[in-house]
Formats: sequence, structure tokens, C-alpha cells
Amino acid sequence: MRAVDIIAKKRDGGELNAAEIDFFIQGYTQDKIPDYQAAAWCMAVLLQGMTTAETTQLTLAMAQSGRQLDLSDVAPLVADKHSTGGVGDKVTLALGPVVAAAGQPVGKMSGRGLGFSGGTLDKLEAIPGWRCDLTEAQFKQQLRQVGLVVAGQTQDIAPADKKLYALRDATATVPSLPLIAASVMSKKLAAGANVILLDVKVGSGAFMETLAEATELAEIMVAIGRRAGRTLTARITDMSQPLGRAVGNALETQEAIATLRGEGPPDFTALILEEAGHLLALCGRAADAAAGKQLAEQALASGAALAKFAAFVAAQGGDPAVVEDPTRLLPQAPVCHALRSPRSGFLAAANARIFGETAVMLGGGRARKEDVIDHSVGVVLHAKVGDAVHAGDPLCTIHARTQAEAAAATARLLTAYAWSETPVTPPALIKHTLPSPHL
Amino acid sequence: MRAVDIIAKKRDGGELNAAEIDFFIQGYTQDKIPDYQAAAWCMAVLLQGMTTAETTQLTLAMAQSGRQLDLSDVAPLVADKHSTGGVGDKVTLALGPVVAAAGQPVGKMSGRGLGFSGGTLDKLEAIPGWRCDLTEAQFKQQLRQVGLVVAGQTQDIAPADKKLYALRDATATVPSLPLIAASVMSKKLAAGANVILLDVKVGSGAFMETLAEATELAEIMVAIGRRAGRTLTARITDMSQPLGRAVGNALETQEAIATLRGEGPPDFTALILEEAGHLLALCGRAADAAAGKQLAEQALASGAALAKFAAFVAAQGGDPAVVEDPTRLLPQAPVCHALRSPRSGFLAAANARIFGETAVMLGGGRARKEDVIDHSVGVVLHAKVGDAVHAGDPLCTIHARTQAEAAAATARLLTAYAWSETPVTPPALIKHTLPSPHL
Repeated sequence: MRAVDIIAKKRDGGELNAAEIDFFIQGYTQDKIPDYQAAAWCMAVLLQGMTTAETTQLTLAMAQSGRQLDLSDVAPLVADKHSTGGVGDKVTLALGPVVAAAGQPVGKMSGRGLGFSGGTLDKLEAIPGWRCDLTEAQFKQQLRQVGLVVAGQTQDIAPADKKLYALRDATATVPSLPLIAASVMSKKLAAGANVILLDVKVGSGAFMETLAEATELAEIMVAIGRRAGRTLTARITDMSQPLGRAVGNALETQEAIATLRGEGPPDFTALILEEAGHLLALCGRAADAAAGKQLAEQALASGAALAKFAAFVAAQGGDPAVVEDPTRLLPQAPVCHALRSPRSGFLAAANARIFGETAVMLGGGRARKEDVIDHSVGVVLHAKVGDAVHAGDPLCTIHARTQAEAAAATARLLTAYAWSETPVTPPALIKHTLPSPHL
Repeated sequence: MRAVDIIAKKRDGGELNAAEIDFFIQGYTQDKIPDYQAAAWCMAVLLQGMTTAETTQLTLAMAQSGRQLDLSDVAPLVADKHSTGGVGDKVTLALGPVVAAAGQPVGKMSGRGLGFSGGTLDKLEAIPGWRCDLTEAQFKQQLRQVGLVVAGQTQDIAPADKKLYALRDATATVPSLPLIAASVMSKKLAAGANVILLDVKVGSGAFMETLAEATELAEIMVAIGRRAGRTLTARITDMSQPLGRAVGNALETQEAIATLRGEGPPDFTALILEEAGHLLALCGRAADAAAGKQLAEQALASGAALAKFAAFVAAQGGDPAVVEDPTRLLPQAPVCHALRSPRSGFLAAANARIFGETAVMLGGGRARKEDVIDHSVGVVLHAKVGDAVHAGDPLCTIHARTQAEAAAATARLLTAYAWSETPVTPPALIKHTLPSPHL
């Protein structure tokens, strides 16, 4: 078998078989196939597409390129939730403790933010001492003892994905649905969870900007997961404006803690409970999503979810007192500046991507992978789409390192907003739910 | 400007401007843009195409990536002829001397064979002592003194093409019309000739298998050449069966010499005279192609063309006695084996690609660039498409190193032939001629 023939087959729109995909991916991972052949292949895949069978095989080959966790000695079912990335997306920080407090072990590997999109590890690292570099033994021990663990991906999880992702970034081959789906799902499969809730974001602050694209990606990922023997479902959720009110690492962790105390934004709290109910039902902890939601509500109301978060933080080296006194323990930006509405009306847009890009500008995100981030900076929204605002009302508060950076962020954020004279219906948070397997 | 943005623009079907193409090609030639980015770009070009303006700009950028010969101090007009490659294509060996003997300087850079397709340099190197590694000064001196020079491409002619071609070969991005056209034309432009006759081969023994593809390639190359200020035209010629009767390096040189003695195959002789007439007219040496053909016929009949070939061979270190006694001076294969027709009928096919592949099998061609070739081996056809043959008639003679190789070649060549019960019209040699500029 020769790499060049496999490239030619895909170039001509052919369907690659399992042996060909495996040869290519293992060869690339082992440096037997050079970057330039993989680059030509990625472009051919991007422009010619892949069938679900091919994408599944690609995902399996990528998962098999490194270590694959087997968590069956810890629990028969381990839950995971994955978001395709957005702005203000602190769902894992609140959802994980709620589900774990309801008795369902949650074990997940997470990533860092890049570009306008934030990352769960960055948000948790705002907590002094919290660390994500766990060994497999530590991961399993914490999953067993605490029921909740969020680790960084070790180098040996899906190494093919690491190599391919860096290559795709440099060769304009990132926006390919099969390659995106295989990248996400290979890591999910290798990380060992067997019940997975996929949250595919759609809108300006997501990688998928249309519902059709997002739905297609969700369907591909669900098909891959099911062919690989996982129980999973997906929902498409709104990312036209930031999720919740906080954008920025420490600010989002603070909002997640507030949500676990029952003091979070109503829309975000409702989303968490709804998703937790769904995941608990998928895991067989409840008869259906509604019953699961009741379990989630109890976990939240009883304080069990907050206590689970504290235990989780402590297990990974962080100070659990953060749940009692977040503003004292989380880093605070020196400058707070209110952006006031220049006009009255109904808020018609708060472009999520611009909020994400502003957080990067303020120092809270990465333009390049090697950038060091400031956990304290960000933006807190006081008004969201559909809200009536008066000229002079604060639309959001900018948390910055300097007045100059706050001023620059103000100018940038003003371009994110739009107003309407007539009432505006807020966008539904959940745009679409794929049919679930066992419910 | 960033390479990744240029790749993305082509990926999305955009038209690259001159600055973008130049940045990419010069960056790649100077090793500032890595192979993997160029590979992704080539695949995007292959699948998304290029406009004529883009292809022209790509050609100019590739020509400008190295040294560009200026032959205006030698002659106001220098003629060149380029074939896209085929089987038994010894046109340059006969056409060059005819045109030069008619008073028109011919200066060309040529290539070697790869795969089923032969190369002019390999054929000439069958002549003991003949060498193609000339300096620019030697090239010009010979063009001035002999009026005919055929050199190998030096390393500094279109280095972008050398890098890109090697990359395309490894990344399944060879069969792209814009990339093929730019590869051919960048070398033609850099080599300095200003009047060019393009011979685009079509059929099983050519890279273009359909007339539509070949015509498109011809039109692109002519458009590029004209935008670059060259006088040129193109014709599409048949490569469904081998050209002439000889396939193999020394055998083809011998056939070219016979043709220059007036003893060549009638169809090949007619093609040479017709093409020479066309080229002489393009160069203003004759009022039109018919008048040019008369000049060519005189050059052949008078022996001037044969003498010109001898002078050309001598100037490049070869023994000019080869024109008097080719079989003594050219290498001869130890085994000659006649392949006899297994049935009677009209010959309906003699698949050129199979003849080319058989020549490689016999040791006369290269499967890989670094292969060493045997100049003596090959095949001489005794019957061509349309001829009536009887069972037992020799269809061709195989010139091989061993009986075993001759037997293997026999088995392979039998698959090249087809017979018909009813008369077969031989394919026209000239399929299509593009409109000429000045005629």
C-alpha cells in the first residue's frame, strides 16, 4: 500500500476502506508518512468529503494511534459531555458537579482555549493550585473516590489528532466536518467514557455558523460514537451571544460557582439542569430526561453539587474555599469599566465572536498556542438579547489590566451590539436535539 | 501576507492575484514556505482549478524563480518545439535538424523519460560521447555556430518547478491542467526561445487521454505563452499507438537518422515536414506553412538536415559517424525476437501505453528517477493500426537483454493489440491545430 495512491483515491472522490485509512493514520503518527502527504490528503478530504463509514474509521484509527483508557474497572458507565467550543461556555464546570452529585461518575479530558473560543482547563486553572496533569492512575482514583475528574489530554491520547490538528492549522484544512468530527470523537473514544452528551454550538461565537452545518456535524459525531459502541446524543445550542453572563476565565468560574449555589443566571441554570437530566437518563440513573432533571434539581438545591465541586477542586490541588469566597481566591483584574448603552431600545445582538475576540485582546485568551493568559480579565454582560435597555444603562462591565486596554475593549465591544425599536425575542438556547438512543 | 491565507483562498475557489502567487512560489523556492503548505495548495489548485490569468502568473513566477536565458544576442528569433511526452516520440531529433538546416536557429532544453513516456536526452545519449550538460556560454556558442542545440535543464532553470514537480509526484497532484501547463511553460519561458511549437499528445500513450483534455491544455499553454510575449501555436497529435515504428532509445535515434536520410516511415516523415513548415512560417522564414514545408523538403532532400544533425552531435561530444553507420555505433541488444500475429485481420489497436511500459520492463525506461537505463532495448513495429496482417506475420521485433525478458515482453505486448475482421481507418496523426497567431 502506498500513501500516494490513497491520496489519489480521495482526490478522485473515492471511498477509502478501513485498511487504507488505518495505513495512512498509523503511518503518519509513526512519521513514516511525511507532513506533505498528510497535508495533500487533508485538503482532498476537505474538498471531496468523507462518508460516515470513512469518518468512523478515521476516528477509530486516530483513537487507536495512542493509549486508550479503559474505565470499566472504575464504573460500568462513565459520563462525559463535550462542547464544540464557544464564548462564555462554562457548562462543564456546573454540569459535572450536578451529575456527579446525583450519583453518576463523570470523567472527562478537556482542552484549552484558542482564538475566540475559551477552554475548560483555563477556567479551572483560575483557581489557585488547581492542576490538570493527572496520571492514568490518578484519573481513575479520583473518578472512583470523588466521582468527578477533569484532566488535560496527555501526550499519548490520540497522538494522530495532535499531529493532524497542528498540520491542519497550518494548511487551511481545519473547516472540514469529517476532520472536525474525527478530531473530537477520537479523543472522546480514547478517554474512556461510554456515555457522551455532545453540545454542538452554533452561531457567531462557534465554529459552526449555521444550524445546517452544526446539525450535520452533530449527526456525524453521533453516528461515529454509536458505531464505536458508545451511548450518546447531541444537541445544537445557541452561540449567537455569550452563554450566561461571564466571559473570561476567573469570571466564568465565579459564575459557575454562583450557579451551583443556586444564584446563577436563569437561562444558564435552566440549561444545566436540562442537560444534566438528559445525561442522567442516558446513564440509566433516571427513567427519562424529566426524572433526571428532578435529580439534578435536588443535587443543586441540597448543596450536594456545590460540595461535589469543592471536593473535585481539592482533589486536583485547588483550594476548596473558592466555593465559599470566590472573589477573594480568584484573581481580580485591577480595572473595571462599565460600557454604557449609547441608545435606548431592545437589545437585538451581542455578537459572541466579538466578545470572545475582546477577551483575547484583554489578555484572557490565546492568539497562538504558546501565549500565556491572564485569568482575571474578561467581560460580564448585564443585558442580553431581548432585554429592554435605556441610553446610559450599563450593557456590560469590562475587567481589564489597564485603562487603555479597557478603552480599546469598549470600542471593540460596541461593534458587537445592535438595537431594535421593537421588541426582540431572545434566541432559544436549545436549537435542536438529536433523537436519543435509549429514551 | 501568510501562506495559510493563500491556501484558504484557493480552497474556497477564489482567484489568486499576482502578488499572492508570487509570494507563494518565491517563498516555496526559498524554503520559507514548507512542503506541507505547498502540498495542500497543490491539492486545492487541482480540485478548484485556476483561471488563465492565475495560471499565467504562476508560470511567470516559476520562470522567475531561477535564471532566465536571454538569447537575443545570438539571434532575434530562436525556435523551440515541445512535446508533452509520448511513446516513440523522436520528433525533436528529426525536426530540429530540418528546421536548423533551413536557416532557423533551434535552441531547446529537454528532459528525460519517466514511466511509460520517453525522453529526448535519453535517446540522444544512446550516441557514444554525446552529452547534454552545457553551460549557458556553451549553449549560446553552439546555437550561434551550429544553429542547433539540445541541452539538459540546468539546476537553476525554474527551480520552483523542480521542487513543485517532486512534491506533486509524491502527493497525487500531478494531473492538474494548470499545474501541468505552468510546469511546461515556465521551463520554456526561462529557456529563452521566443517561437514555440507545442505538440500536445493525446491517447493511451500520453498524459492526456481525451481530445477535450488535450485541447484544454494546449489552449492554456498557448494563452500563457502569448501573454508572456512569445509567438507560439499548438497542435494535438495522436498517441493512441506509438509514433513511427521504433520505441526505445537507440532504436528511436536510428529511426530519426533514417528519416533524415529520407528513409523514415512515411507517416513520421510527413509529420516532421509538416511541423517544420509550420515552425519556419512562425519564425518568418516562409510566407506560410506550405512554403515552409517546401523549405523543409529541400533541407531533407539535399542532405543538409542530415549534415546538420552530424554537426550537432559532434558539437555536443558525440561521434558524427553515427549518421553514416548507426547500427555500428549505437548499442545493440543481444536478443531480437519477433512477435508474430496470432490471427489474421486488420490491426485495430497497438496501445501506446503498453509499448511504453514494455520498454520500461525491458530496461529502456525509468520506473523511478534514479533508475539507470539500457539504451539498446526496445521494440520496432512492423505493422500499425489499419494494416492488414496474416496469422504468423511479425507484428513487431523485441530487442531485449535476455530471452526471458523478451518472452515477458511478448506476453505483455500481445495485450496491446486488437484485430478487426473489417477494414480499420488509421487514426489521423494531427487531431487538431490551434489557430496560429501570424499565419
